Amino acid sequence: MSATDGVVRIALLGCGTVGSQVVRLLQEHGEDWAARSGARLELVGIAVRDVSAPRAPWVPRDLLTDDAEGLVDRADVIIELVGGIEPARSLVLRALRSGRSVVTGNKALLARHGPELHAAVEQGDADLYYEAAVAGAIPVVYGLRESLAGDNVLAVVGIVNGTTNYILDEMSTRGLDFADALAQAQELGYAEADPSADVDGHDAAAKAAILASLAFHTRVGIGDVPVTGIRHITAEDIAAAQAGGHVMKLLAVARRTDAGVAVRVHPALVPETHPLAAVRGAFNGVVVEAEAAGRLMFYGQGAGGTPTASAVLSDVVAAAGHAMRGGHAPRESAYAQLPLLGPDATPARTQVQLRLADRPGSLAAVAGIYGEEGVSIESVHQQRSDDGQARVTITSHAATEASLTRTVERLVAESRVQEIISVTQVEGSE
Amino acid sequence: MSATDGVVRIALLGCGTVGSQVVRLLQEHGEDWAARSGARLELVGIAVRDVSAPRAPWVPRDLLTDDAEGLVDRADVIIELVGGIEPARSLVLRALRSGRSVVTGNKALLARHGPELHAAVEQGDADLYYEAAVAGAIPVVYGLRESLAGDNVLAVVGIVNGTTNYILDEMSTRGLDFADALAQAQELGYAEADPSADVDGHDAAAKAAILASLAFHTRVGIGDVPVTGIRHITAEDIAAAQAGGHVMKLLAVARRTDAGVAVRVHPALVPETHPLAAVRGAFNGVVVEAEAAGRLMFYGQGAGGTPTASAVLSDVVAAAGHAMRGGHAPRESAYAQLPLLGPDATPARTQVQLRLADRPGSLAAVAGIYGEEGVSIESVHQQRSDDGQARVTITSHAATEASLTRTVERLVAESRVQEIISVTQVEGSE
Repeated sequence: MSATDGVVRIALLGCGTVGSQVVRLLQEHGEDWAARSGARLELVGIAVRDVSAPRAPWVPRDLLTDDAEGLVDRADVIIELVGGIEPARSLVLRALRSGRSVVTGNKALLARHGPELHAAVEQGDADLYYEAAVAGAIPVVYGLRESLAGDNVLAVVGIVNGTTNYILDEMSTRGLDFADALAQAQELGYAEADPSADVDGHDAAAKAAILASLAFHTRVGIGDVPVTGIRHITAEDIAAAQAGGHVMKLLAVARRTDAGVAVRVHPALVPETHPLAAVRGAFNGVVVEAEAAGRLMFYGQGAGGTPTASAVLSDVVAAAGHAMRGGHAPRESAYAQLPLLGPDATPARTQVQLRLADRPGSLAAVAGIYGEEGVSIESVHQQRSDDGQARVTITSHAATEASLTRTVERLVAESRVQEIISVTQVEGSE
Repeated sequence: MSATDGVVRIALLGCGTVGSQVVRLLQEHGEDWAARSGARLELVGIAVRDVSAPRAPWVPRDLLTDDAEGLVDRADVIIELVGGIEPARSLVLRALRSGRSVVTGNKALLARHGPELHAAVEQGDADLYYEAAVAGAIPVVYGLRESLAGDNVLAVVGIVNGTTNYILDEMSTRGLDFADALAQAQELGYAEADPSADVDGHDAAAKAAILASLAFHTRVGIGDVPVTGIRHITAEDIAAAQAGGHVMKLLAVARRTDAGVAVRVHPALVPETHPLAAVRGAFNGVVVEAEAAGRLMFYGQGAGGTPTASAVLSDVVAAAGHAMRGGHAPRESAYAQLPLLGPDATPARTQVQLRLADRPGSLAAVAGIYGEEGVSIESVHQQRSDDGQARVTITSHAATEASLTRTVERLVAESRVQEIISVTQVEGSE
């Protein structure tokens, strides 16, 4: 779809927090973009479920329609901010297959139906842009899809969910427990009434799948990403992390090894000196390690109406530029199709806190289990308590997830271990 | 110039530290890129001054030539890593005017001859890429030129010279004075035998001009950037900064106000909590503040053979993609042509340290000068020393450079001021 008359017709699907900011920015800066891209961006319609619902005052009433399909058919570039799977999926497919470029912030759609969307891109010779799907205005999709196209990415480790980072940060800095920090996040509008998508890690898992697909030229869907959320994390876990020079973060981790690609979402201990430790509040940060570029970090606001709208509009300007000057956004690059690693081949490190019976040989028995499972120990800290028990913190070197799981199973069965207090992943170089 | 046979012919001009890494990465990853971009990248020649000089072992002897012009004429994409103005300028112009895309890391050429290069781009309908010219592999040129194309940039504040950041960091963490830290940087290869381009701020000024041009859609050349380097900074200045909760950094600052654009390079005090304070050693970091996106930071290795080669190759892959799929890189966008602000309109904050005669009315006289020049004071710290003098540190609120300069001139002339110890810019929100 090209705009031969110098006008690029934009259709907006969905007009919530982000959508209404997109409308405002289009109104305020339309002339600037015309000057920058050589194309005049004309918003030709806004599809909403309920035309009569209240809207931000700057949203033009006469552009509202409940006929989303009809709107798609009369635009050059479609901005999809409906969210969820249907009707977003059908509308995006309709647009792409008819050669209309799509700009979307819909991480769930991408992470569940990526291959179908990319096939529609090929079919319609259209473009698909999704900077807004991961980490708001932080250009990490751009970074991986274009800037690092000449390098080999080794790992992507990111804080990609602002809600959980806010909750963990409040727990760390103010000593709140999870329930109180969640309630506060809900009060401030950082967390939904049903917080599951955030606190159980599903939102981060969708983003991890998108980032891993881009980084490793391999199809990764949300179903390929094992997830652990943050509900189980206690104020004690946070305090213990701090005492050991760590910060607790919910991380999306995608790592390439000689055997393939491992993608995970889980809380992890990050050393205080790691760049991600400094990502506070509801901010996001993504570290990319590439063979030639070394370690890069991208940092900024990962959510919110205007930052996400900024990401949407950067994609719209790119799409308009292609509509005017020709060319295309990069297509899906899944040529590598590296194997996705299971627990037997996924590298991991853990920190285990346990209570040991205070009798001779207890620590030796524990260390013996680590050794027999082939897990080498980086450090052991033992503290004796008044009740004759010893609290021990054991940090491993890198091993496989499977061997670390077997180690914990055997610790549970070992009679000299009174209690496993916590098992936490550890991120960062050893 | 398009590559109709699926092969994109690459010419490399210059084969030093970065160039030889480009050759290595092309050899090692050529097949990967072919799979990603659909184009086979063929290195057709390497132009060097002296064909018989020693080279890295992987550089193919049979590709070396001293006929740079002839090489340009038989390639689709030219990588210019000669550096300096001539013959780089003539070769780049020759390539662009004949429709060949150019990838360059030559910040001096861009900052001095940008308009001429961009005119050649238009003339030849070619593309010009220069990610490697600023901050190594950190995709800040991409970020400003493409990702933030839909936003309005308010400020770019960056640590863009690794050598000076290394020197200041060593002064801060190890208490070295400037001369010793410079000698150490030279020993380790971080600083040149003639360190002027780095320590006097000229390298940072070229990068500031490039970033400001991109951020504000306004032509800014290196001659438009007032520069102060770091030679005059003493171990005492660094210690005083630390005592006040600041870190000393050499900053490239480009800021937009209602009146226009102010671009500067100078050492500045950065609050310890500012994201740039955490940029250590020879790393680079660039903070971009945009209207909708908010504050973003890009962080990574700003120099070195492989990180810079990564930036070059990301541009080569983009150029190859355009050669295969059509389309163009964004052209120069200078439509805004905002006025460049002089001292009368450039916002600044300073911290002045001075020694006052210890008699009644001294501080009132100093404060009076600030008030008469329209500069409001944020904080005053006074310390009395044994010799009956008072050491006073005065931090201003934002004012114009001109009024801050007049304030200092009047302080020098004021008899109750015994000595102006230092005058330093202050960065970061108040």
